[in-house]
Amino acid sequence: MLGRPFLALGLLLCGLSGVEFIFAALDATVSDENWQGFLISAIMSGLIGVGLVSAFWSAAHDKHFDLRSGFILTALSWTVFPLMASFPFFFSDLDISLTDAVFETISGVTTTGSTVLTDLDHLDPMLLLWRSVLQWIGGVGIILMAVLMMPFLRIGGMQLFQLESSARSETGLHTRPGALIRDIAALYVALTLLCAACFSIAGMSAFDALNHSMSTLATGGYSTHDASLGYFNNAAIYWVAIIFMAAAALPFMMYLRAIKEGPRIIASDPQAPLFLLMLVGMWLIGAAFLNEGGDYFTTLTRVAVNVTSVITTTGFASEDYQLWGAGFIGFFFALTFFGGCAGSTSGAIKIYRLQLLGLYAGAHLRRLHSPSIVQATTYGGVKLDRETGLSVLAFLALFVGAFSVGAFALALTGLDFPTALSASATALCNVGPGLGAVIGPAGNFSTLPDLAKWILLGLMLLGRLELFALLVLFDPYFWR
Amino acid sequence: MLGRPFLALGLLLCGLSGVEFIFAALDATVSDENWQGFLISAIMSGLIGVGLVSAFWSAAHDKHFDLRSGFILTALSWTVFPLMASFPFFFSDLDISLTDAVFETISGVTTTGSTVLTDLDHLDPMLLLWRSVLQWIGGVGIILMAVLMMPFLRIGGMQLFQLESSARSETGLHTRPGALIRDIAALYVALTLLCAACFSIAGMSAFDALNHSMSTLATGGYSTHDASLGYFNNAAIYWVAIIFMAAAALPFMMYLRAIKEGPRIIASDPQAPLFLLMLVGMWLIGAAFLNEGGDYFTTLTRVAVNVTSVITTTGFASEDYQLWGAGFIGFFFALTFFGGCAGSTSGAIKIYRLQLLGLYAGAHLRRLHSPSIVQATTYGGVKLDRETGLSVLAFLALFVGAFSVGAFALALTGLDFPTALSASATALCNVGPGLGAVIGPAGNFSTLPDLAKWILLGLMLLGRLELFALLVLFDPYFWR
Ligand SMILES: [K+]
Ligand SMILES: [K+]
Repeated sequence: MLGRPFLALGLLLCGLSGVEFIFAALDATVSDENWQGFLISAIMSGLIGVGLVSAFWSAAHDKHFDLRSGFILTALSWTVFPLMASFPFFFSDLDISLTDAVFETISGVTTTGSTVLTDLDHLDPMLLLWRSVLQWIGGVGIILMAVLMMPFLRIGGMQLFQLESSARSETGLHTRPGALIRDIAALYVALTLLCAACFSIAGMSAFDALNHSMSTLATGGYSTHDASLGYFNNAAIYWVAIIFMAAAALPFMMYLRAIKEGPRIIASDPQAPLFLLMLVGMWLIGAAFLNEGGDYFTTLTRVAVNVTSVITTTGFASEDYQLWGAGFIGFFFALTFFGGCAGSTSGAIKIYRLQLLGLYAGAHLRRLHSPSIVQATTYGGVKLDRETGLSVLAFLALFVGAFSVGAFALALTGLDFPTALSASATALCNVGPGLGAVIGPAGNFSTLPDLAKWILLGLMLLGRLELFALLVLFDPYFWR
Repeated sequence: MLGRPFLALGLLLCGLSGVEFIFAALDATVSDENWQGFLISAIMSGLIGVGLVSAFWSAAHDKHFDLRSGFILTALSWTVFPLMASFPFFFSDLDISLTDAVFETISGVTTTGSTVLTDLDHLDPMLLLWRSVLQWIGGVGIILMAVLMMPFLRIGGMQLFQLESSARSETGLHTRPGALIRDIAALYVALTLLCAACFSIAGMSAFDALNHSMSTLATGGYSTHDASLGYFNNAAIYWVAIIFMAAAALPFMMYLRAIKEGPRIIASDPQAPLFLLMLVGMWLIGAAFLNEGGDYFTTLTRVAVNVTSVITTTGFASEDYQLWGAGFIGFFFALTFFGGCAGSTSGAIKIYRLQLLGLYAGAHLRRLHSPSIVQATTYGGVKLDRETGLSVLAFLALFVGAFSVGAFALALTGLDFPTALSASATALCNVGPGLGAVIGPAGNFSTLPDLAKWILLGLMLLGRLELFALLVLFDPYFWR
């Protein structure tokens, strides 16, 4: 049960070590500030990685990959990997605690983007790039998880997105995922480069364009400036961000199909049209309520960049939208929970679960007053059975439960009421900025108590792994 | 489909008219302030009641009472009845708007207990008694609904509480509920009188004891004083309130069974032991965090009376517990959602739904990693099937959805963030007081905009009728 997951983790850490070696070399060349930290981290990751690979090499020939191995691999790669990846921060000239280093890293790989670092504008550029790369890797990691792993693990309704072409049984993953991984990775790289080119044309420096394109495609939200996107104060840059944040929140499998079968496939996708409609709808609602003068295009741009950022769970900000009025605080708090499409890099509840809630609640309502009605409901061509309904609804209930317990625990660490609520929401939904003076879009998480930071880390991981992938490990039966 | 519901509504209004005539006579004798208002209201209710009864008298012989009639009767009796019952406020010397009169009445019959009236201490005693009676009627109304109607309508998991002795089919209510109504009403009256006697012995005036006993048994929370229970500042009164609030949040069918089969039945009730355990647990947690000096018994009393009040959704307050510290605001906000047991007068989510969420989420978790496990789970001796699971989980998801939409709509009317959140929660959960300076335990709902009051009324009714009983009417298929 443990062989293949540990082998895979070992390979991941070897990969991490390689990237850290490259960063050590680059840092020595470019800024000469933190190459020692990257080098130490590279050696540590490499030693543990090689150790795991050689210890579990025999498992490579084990063809059996069962459900429990899948869950263990998932948990290992999203906890041990970021712990190891936090050492470049810890051994840097930032002089931060291990808690802060781990916070920054898990906030990165989960593509949450809450930061404890200040004065980003004067940071070692290689550390800024390290943050962006962590988000970028986390982003493609979650797409691959969503496409290859989650449907197999049948988490939170993700079984609806099983690949038609794959012949999976309930007990094993029989398809060769190599080609699919290659296609998704190629698409991810291509979109990132396209985004970087657009940012650059719109006026960013090459370094800023590279960093922001990586955190945009990851819907991560790490920036190279304390003022986030607001630093640029440039409508062209805002619209490039809007378009690519939205693109990153759409299902990546849809792109692959559109490339093969033509772009008309997008209209028949079960999620994309509704998501885009909702997105534009929220722009228009926001713009209708924001009465601060200026022409409509300027208002729409201001609203669109911040609304898109929160709905897609990216977390960039162009300004402190809390100052737009009391109604907007509730508005942005509500938007935190939406999220993009399944199979994208974005987090939170996601549009398909809201659709399924509507379908199941409607069907339930109808059965209440007319029990004899026979209803066959489908979603994206897949028949909706009760098992899927339980899966989605249990997800929603537990999601709210995790948010509530999180907010409650955060309040006990001394956070005030709106800060505790929004911190729990923004961490669980992997958005990034919260509300209030401390952790708002103009704020920073560095002053929170350490305990609060660890609670937030737990919420980020819970949210990113769709709750159940992590919670199964706490079921005593799992280990029997 | 409409005959029997309208006949029943007519009978209800005739009853209302009778009570209003009695109040007119009493007011003329006691205070001589508002007997005209009660008289006008009595005549209006009587005319409409008699009109409906004579128009639909032929339906009395219609033996068929189907699901849709049940839903229509439910909706009619919880909207038209309180509208008619609001006239004594509107035609009184309070000089309040129709919105405020309706707010006070629906807040009464739904046993929410949010008030728009100020200076209660100097109000016409007959109006105070009218408020208490509205809550008291609403309280017994919801118990009868929960025992006789909800399991038949299969709302939000209530099908688990079908009476074993009744032989119901899916199409009709075949049992004679007369004896059961009589037993429950007798028990309700007896508990109210016992509570009034205890309040009186503990130090209340006879009038206060009567009013508070009615709003305690209803878990309603209307008081005869602006300072609520805090007016008395008397530990004996607090403990009487604690015991009877808790008693009112336990299943009334359990009492009837305990009377017949002995008190040992209580230990085997699926809800009661866990509820009482949770209640005492919350007392101890609260008392552990409340460090304001004083002996432990005083601290425990202060915590217990307010915690019990919120958990049972009564809404009495002995002081402004928001001053106990930032953590307590989140604590009381969280407690708002709990609620008592199904088949009691209390509202909110209720303990059995939290138990079922745990059971279903646990079973789901187990099936995720071990799909071949066969699990048969029961609750209170009833086998849990997927249909019940969908019913409970859809309830939970929609409950959160209603809370969120409510908070959002309230924020748009101009309420600040914590006020909007807690107002939505306290209305939907039928608790009464919210958080913040305006609607907190020391506050009052009178200054809210009219639109906010109507939104809150909608939430109170949604919460009281377990969402689905009201939502089915908005399904176009319902009317075909
Ligand atoms: K993010
Ligand atoms: K109440």
